[in-house]
Amino acid sequence: MDRIKEQSIVFIGAGNLATHLAIELYRSGYTIAQVYSRSKDSAKLLAKKVAADFIVSLKSVNKKADIYFICVPDSAIKDVLHKINIKEKLIIHTSGAIGINVFSSIHKNFGVFYPLQTFSKKRKVKFNNIPICVEANSEKNTLKLLEIASKISDKSYIINSYKRSQLHLAAVFCNNFVNHLYTIASEIIANSEIDFDLLKPLILETAKKITKNKSSEMQSGPAIRNDIITLEKHKKMLSDSTAYLKIYNLLSSSISKSKNQTRTNTCQS
Amino acid sequence: MDRIKEQSIVFIGAGNLATHLAIELYRSGYTIAQVYSRSKDSAKLLAKKVAADFIVSLKSVNKKADIYFICVPDSAIKDVLHKINIKEKLIIHTSGAIGINVFSSIHKNFGVFYPLQTFSKKRKVKFNNIPICVEANSEKNTLKLLEIASKISDKSYIINSYKRSQLHLAAVFCNNFVNHLYTIASEIIANSEIDFDLLKPLILETAKKITKNKSSEMQSGPAIRNDIITLEKHKKMLSDSTAYLKIYNLLSSSISKSKNQTRTNTCQS
Repeated sequence: MDRIKEQSIVFIGAGNLATHLAIELYRSGYTIAQVYSRSKDSAKLLAKKVAADFIVSLKSVNKKADIYFICVPDSAIKDVLHKINIKEKLIIHTSGAIGINVFSSIHKNFGVFYPLQTFSKKRKVKFNNIPICVEANSEKNTLKLLEIASKISDKSYIINSYKRSQLHLAAVFCNNFVNHLYTIASEIIANSEIDFDLLKPLILETAKKITKNKSSEMQSGPAIRNDIITLEKHKKMLSDSTAYLKIYNLLSSSISKSKNQTRTNTCQS
Repeated sequence: MDRIKEQSIVFIGAGNLATHLAIELYRSGYTIAQVYSRSKDSAKLLAKKVAADFIVSLKSVNKKADIYFICVPDSAIKDVLHKINIKEKLIIHTSGAIGINVFSSIHKNFGVFYPLQTFSKKRKVKFNNIPICVEANSEKNTLKLLEIASKISDKSYIINSYKRSQLHLAAVFCNNFVNHLYTIASEIIANSEIDFDLLKPLILETAKKITKNKSSEMQSGPAIRNDIITLEKHKKMLSDSTAYLKIYNLLSSSISKSKNQTRTNTCQS
């Protein structure tokens, strides 16, 4: 494959997102010049996959690359920006929660490249379907980021820091909190030695449903029906777990309050 | 198609579950003798789809059918059982939350047939993948229900009332509560005029992930990382909505407490 000229990329970080993104960009023709990680194993592993050099010290960052992707935990971004000291080249972070103002006056070309998805090293993801939210300091850099996004995804959006932070918060509800509810459900049935597999078709259908319908119109269950008998039965069943009972009560009451909003004729459970 | 002999079924109810179940059983060769609904339109609509008669009074229930499926709201089951007064024939309810003891001493053959899925009239569902949980008063009736289940699904289970109630509670967390979190997410981004479509790939992947991995090991986000800065930022963003802030705090704290459990190296947002 002809590598995309003058587009060599350095990856700072070799975690889940860095791994998926570096591999995807490499596959799309970009040259990955270097992969940095504090962990030699992680740096080496990813570097090998994308034909890059690996480094374990930020002092060794190749200053001659064209684009620098910072894929480190949010709390480490500022420190990394300070240490690698890239002034003229395009430097990008990939965080949903960190604003573009994390870049300081020393940076001339900077931006954000936020793929809105959950990544685990073990799971393959199809990048073409992942919304990539970009923001940059200039039109030229915005276009550059859109161009990169278009190489790996069919869906790219210019989203400013404020909107991105809202999206990130919404993602916490849709992913982090939803996943925790799955865990609570698994614990409830584990006590009765019921296989979690029984819940999987329901979990998948619940997610698929809202790709075609408004979730507010799909709301079902005892809380929206104001089915006091079932609500009380459930509360009794959860009486041994104060934490889960509190969650049950709070979410049921929130659903109940949303009742006045539009809903269609839908039932579950 | 040769209809399955001596297996004529009466459906009491023509809601979402009744509609999907009656059509599926009809397709599998069962004769649907009658469909009852208080709403003439609903009864007529479903009856037409399954070549059945429709009735709008429980007094008109055909006593000569073989199996009676009660698919009415939980709160109406007792009343229906009393009114149709079926003594010898096999009578079945389809509720997750109602125990088998709802049948009284007048009933000789009874059971529960609980398809663990969320149904909406408009959405097609593949029945073969839906877990059917059955319970009956005798081995003979249990086998009969397993036989019916096997005609429409590859997954049937004998689950007693206690276990079914646990499953139903877990389903409330996986479906009702999860769906409500989708609604909250949609409201958060609606304020910023961001299209909900951006969250759909994340929602689907979050659900798909736990079909192959333990949700407790997939937990990610600021709460599990104890990322105080992001948590505080989110709380500030939600300060206009006391209800959602409470949910954010409670779920974050519950995730944080679960931290001591196993987790793999997973990141999102």
